Amino acid sequence: MRCDVVAVGTELLLGQIVDTNSSWLGEQLAAAGIDSCLQVKVGDNQARIVAALQSVLRDADAVIVCGGLGPTHDDITRESIAEVMGTTLEMHDVIADRIAHMFASRNRKMAENNLRQAMVPRGASVIEQKRGTAPGLICPVGDKVIYAVPGVPYELHEMFERAILPDLLARSGEPRKIASRVLRTWGESESGLNERLQPLIDELDRVGNPTLAFLASGWEGIKVRLTARGADDASVKSLLDSWAERVRAIVPEVVFGYDTDTMESVVLDLLRAQGLTIGVAESVTGGLVAGRLTATPGSSDVMRGGVVAYASDVKFDVLGVPRGPVISEDTARAMAVGVCKTVGSSVGLALTGVAGPAEQDGAKVGTLCIAVAMPAGGPGTSSGSSGQLVASSTTVMLPGDRKTMRELAVISALNYLRQLLQRP
Amino acid sequence: MRCDVVAVGTELLLGQIVDTNSSWLGEQLAAAGIDSCLQVKVGDNQARIVAALQSVLRDADAVIVCGGLGPTHDDITRESIAEVMGTTLEMHDVIADRIAHMFASRNRKMAENNLRQAMVPRGASVIEQKRGTAPGLICPVGDKVIYAVPGVPYELHEMFERAILPDLLARSGEPRKIASRVLRTWGESESGLNERLQPLIDELDRVGNPTLAFLASGWEGIKVRLTARGADDASVKSLLDSWAERVRAIVPEVVFGYDTDTMESVVLDLLRAQGLTIGVAESVTGGLVAGRLTATPGSSDVMRGGVVAYASDVKFDVLGVPRGPVISEDTARAMAVGVCKTVGSSVGLALTGVAGPAEQDGAKVGTLCIAVAMPAGGPGTSSGSSGQLVASSTTVMLPGDRKTMRELAVISALNYLRQLLQRP
Repeated sequence: MRCDVVAVGTELLLGQIVDTNSSWLGEQLAAAGIDSCLQVKVGDNQARIVAALQSVLRDADAVIVCGGLGPTHDDITRESIAEVMGTTLEMHDVIADRIAHMFASRNRKMAENNLRQAMVPRGASVIEQKRGTAPGLICPVGDKVIYAVPGVPYELHEMFERAILPDLLARSGEPRKIASRVLRTWGESESGLNERLQPLIDELDRVGNPTLAFLASGWEGIKVRLTARGADDASVKSLLDSWAERVRAIVPEVVFGYDTDTMESVVLDLLRAQGLTIGVAESVTGGLVAGRLTATPGSSDVMRGGVVAYASDVKFDVLGVPRGPVISEDTARAMAVGVCKTVGSSVGLALTGVAGPAEQDGAKVGTLCIAVAMPAGGPGTSSGSSGQLVASSTTVMLPGDRKTMRELAVISALNYLRQLLQRP
Repeated sequence: MRCDVVAVGTELLLGQIVDTNSSWLGEQLAAAGIDSCLQVKVGDNQARIVAALQSVLRDADAVIVCGGLGPTHDDITRESIAEVMGTTLEMHDVIADRIAHMFASRNRKMAENNLRQAMVPRGASVIEQKRGTAPGLICPVGDKVIYAVPGVPYELHEMFERAILPDLLARSGEPRKIASRVLRTWGESESGLNERLQPLIDELDRVGNPTLAFLASGWEGIKVRLTARGADDASVKSLLDSWAERVRAIVPEVVFGYDTDTMESVVLDLLRAQGLTIGVAESVTGGLVAGRLTATPGSSDVMRGGVVAYASDVKFDVLGVPRGPVISEDTARAMAVGVCKTVGSSVGLALTGVAGPAEQDGAKVGTLCIAVAMPAGGPGTSSGSSGQLVASSTTVMLPGDRKTMRELAVISALNYLRQLLQRP
């Protein structure tokens, strides 16, 4: 089964928008075991859209066309598909009513051209719109098929998962249920993960289901994605459960979560479960750790705040760090203890290091000292700022330019805290 | 003149990497007045690469192939181009020597397959490599041309600007010098900018040189890019100087910088020039403003640090904000004054607001209160923390989800500070 992609829009060719839709579709199709061999960007020009569709359909079994389904005169995907099908457009009354009703319910006057979105090539079936105004289309061309979806990513994603992927799987004779599970990891390189998981990957290659893919995601870590197919939801879930557990068992220390978990959501959940609050003291990252923790809605019950101690004097005067060179674990530990007192948190996380471009205090670019201050006796023994604190620390060397080093510092520090919070 | 793009790499089709190269090239080509009508992604498969090149060359005058020039067995762009040209590959001794020398100079053993990168289709000329090991290629096909460049973005950008664009312009008979200037703006929507600049845009449409484009860039603001062509550098510069000034004169209050300027670099430069230091007090943005200021190398002479006052108690206890509801300009002003005292800065910038998902203290999602504390008597009158401070404040409503609102809050606050620092 081969399904290619045609992305429509002059703005894509002009580089005003990067075409992430075809990348996303390629990823989804690959996970489902469907080949995508050619992905094309073409402008809002009917002759070129038609030529691209005809050319792609010569070799592929199916093609997904993204974009050009809106109400304006340069939205000509519908007309182009009708030309490829050798037919004409007709008004789809149900869709037209739905569009008119949507405007009425919002007390907005509907411009007449919105009804263009209710025009459907004869012989095509409709993918109902759930979010936008434009429906998707399933358009048979001989024994092949053109799917048309809006270019708005969240509309496209929803229609692909609800209607296109099931239709593709039915056409390919594959089992019709498909689902993925992502293991979120940090602390091992992609090649390192690959090496440790190689025997399991070899086994998966033999059985063919689920598939496994690595997705390097910057300061989000490396994602290991399992995608399983099966006759029903229960069998798919069972496959994912057992293989995810097998992956985790091989690299247990680097798996910090699953699917929509993030490093910060995991850390916040651990703190919350142990009745702890957190304060952050940052030098090299200058506020990025606090910025990331507070990106999570609902973090305010755990996250008290922090001190950005960029100038050394702020470390000394606000956080009570003893004067001296500031790139050291001693400094980081003093910062971690200091921030607990300043913001009244039970746990303190501190970072000091060198992002470059130049060395500092004799420490190389990439040096990161991380410290965590916690109630003595371990988590849960004290949640006030008055209790006795013990500080742990570590030093890591991070690669990359200033921006990369700072981003990797954020996830490294949160991961260090996670490991301490998960210690028995 | 029409130049299409073929991006080579199975990883692009699998969605493991988003193809930003063709978007970048499309943007550059459009700025130079060259059409790009079709952009194709194809995998590491010689038959498909050859078919894509032949298909594109039927309609276009030129094609840029990105990627597949590396040393490994799946790097087959060279072989594919030779097939399209109807010729064979030969070893280019100068390139081979250069590659061997590069490895020797780094004391690294060169695997034999690296010399694959010195193979060149007969009749092609070479674009010398400056950064990586693979050279680019200029390959005539009848009166048309295939350019091949590595897929690594910074290698591609450098070769495009140095060799491909001049060659394209020479072929098109256009003046050979081209350059751009970007006006960085914040505070006016894209449609608002468009409306205010419409008479000037109409005039540019008539004269055709320079061209003007808007590039919406999230929390970097909206960029207005002028691209001019001319016979020599001096005439291009003169065109850009005069038109950039005409644009600025129409929307003077929103232009904060040019080209590589960023809002944070402009603010840091203004502070530095006035002998001021800064501290940041953040609630809703949780450290993102400080994180952005410290992203700039060399910010440490101006940026003292900050307080992330996420919990209300931190606002009261650390920053001395009077107890009460915390989403107000009063609170923001107290935070701005407080952070000057806490971190010993002469200027304080403070943000409090509601990023959602829910309302807070009766303030709607999107509300942002910004305050700046400065030495009384204006900038330059006092740079210590002991001087008298005066605080200014404003409230803005920002759109978007939690992430967008927080990002727009960062640039809105920095822009407010910029405007105060630039006041006569």
